[in-house]
Amino acid sequence: MTELEDLADRLRRFARERDWEQFHTPKNLAMAFAGEAGELVAEFQWLTPEESAAVMDDPQAAERVRSELADVVTYLVRLADVLGVDLVEATHAKIDQNERRFPVEASRGRARKAPPFA
Amino acid sequence: MTELEDLADRLRRFARERDWEQFHTPKNLAMAFAGEAGELVAEFQWLTPEESAAVMDDPQAAERVRSELADVVTYLVRLADVLGVDLVEATHAKIDQNERRFPVEASRGRARKAPPFA
Amino acid sequence: MTELEDLADRLRRFARERDWEQFHTPKNLAMAFAGEAGELVAEFQWLTPEESAAVMDDPQAAERVRSELADVVTYLVRLADVLGVDLVEATHAKIDQNERRFPVEASRGRARKAPPFA
Amino acid sequence: MTELEDLADRLRRFARERDWEQFHTPKNLAMAFAGEAGELVAEFQWLTPEESAAVMDDPQAAERVRSELADVVTYLVRLADVLGVDLVEATHAKIDQNERRFPVEASRGRARKAPPFA
Repeated sequence: MTELEDLADRLRRFARERDWEQFHTPKNLAMAFAGEAGELVAEFQWLTPEESAAVMDDPQAAERVRSELADVVTYLVRLADVLGVDLVEATHAKIDQNERRFPVEASRGRARKAPPFA
Repeated sequence: MTELEDLADRLRRFARERDWEQFHTPKNLAMAFAGEAGELVAEFQWLTPEESAAVMDDPQAAERVRSELADVVTYLVRLADVLGVDLVEATHAKIDQNERRFPVEASRGRARKAPPFA
Repeated sequence: MTELEDLADRLRRFARERDWEQFHTPKNLAMAFAGEAGELVAEFQWLTPEESAAVMDDPQAAERVRSELADVVTYLVRLADVLGVDLVEATHAKIDQNERRFPVEASRGRARKAPPFA
Repeated sequence: MTELEDLADRLRRFARERDWEQFHTPKNLAMAFAGEAGELVAEFQWLTPEESAAVMDDPQAAERVRSELADVVTYLVRLADVLGVDLVEATHAKIDQNERRFPVEASRGRARKAPPFA
């Protein structure tokens, strides 16, 4: 069992024991995920890019960032589990596409024209 | 090497080859992540909860959902890599907390008062 | 002076008095706005569509929703002010476009194919 | 009739003519709003703070930003209309609170400790 399957298992059990699976439709989980993504981005909103690169040096900020990352992973793994999607496989497939879409030479250093990844 | 470390490696190499690491500050990656979270939630916005539960039965919708999931994983794994955070470890730590915060008996079936996870 | 100009004025003064204009770049304000959008969507995440339609009947939920709406308006108005965009004019222009893009007869009742507005 | 009431009227009519009001539950509109907020933040993700301050100097970027702002206003005004919330009144009430919460002298220049507004 991979580490993500293991996480999905634990979260499924967590929900089942509390009878929360009834709330875990893809629609609701996508909303919960978006809500947590908002909390994550908020951690960085007033930081300069340079300050953001050093955010883990501040123990309190580091703890908040770690906690927000855990929240987004939680809902992302739950959502993928409910949908039956293998996140790692889907992401490798997308990188395969992006390697064709953004050839190394043509893409070098051009973030705006050939935006990183997406 | 775990599957997420492997993914982080591949994405780091992808960025490095294109000289895109300069754009990958935590601040920028958190924004890109939030943007992709928005695209993911948009896939479900007009669906009823019941329709959302069947979304993977429609091949075109399934492909879009898989693609949006891949995009959020991409930026999430890049962000965690740049920050030096182990996503799986952080999430298990958070579930440990949530197990104490939401005892099984007291939490059963109560989504609004004791909202699922977060 | 319109009600939105009046609001923009008040928020600009609020920021200036606290020497916060230095933090109010479009990039930062867009992040703050996205963060607040996440908090707003979170208010509805575990509600059924029907429950969401009755959310203002619960005084506590109503107060939270009103407060989250105010937060998104705050950052939206600040962002538009800093960018020099007239929100009302821009929205009317977009509706003009959408009226052409979604002719009444062809669009009737079809949310998925011709998604409402966007 | 204020400019926002006028906008709400036009959007309500737009939805009604297409029989789209059935999709416009607060839950769905909050999701659509969050999705558009993601598109707005994405416009700024690879820009430095300085580049973001000059974004309206580039006609194509300016047009995209104006269009994304219109989309978020659209769903925000629809959502408030469906909920029966007066956005301007709610925001003034929140600023009243924030004036008490962040006294001018104690808050001056301190974004991280006393984060701008929210």
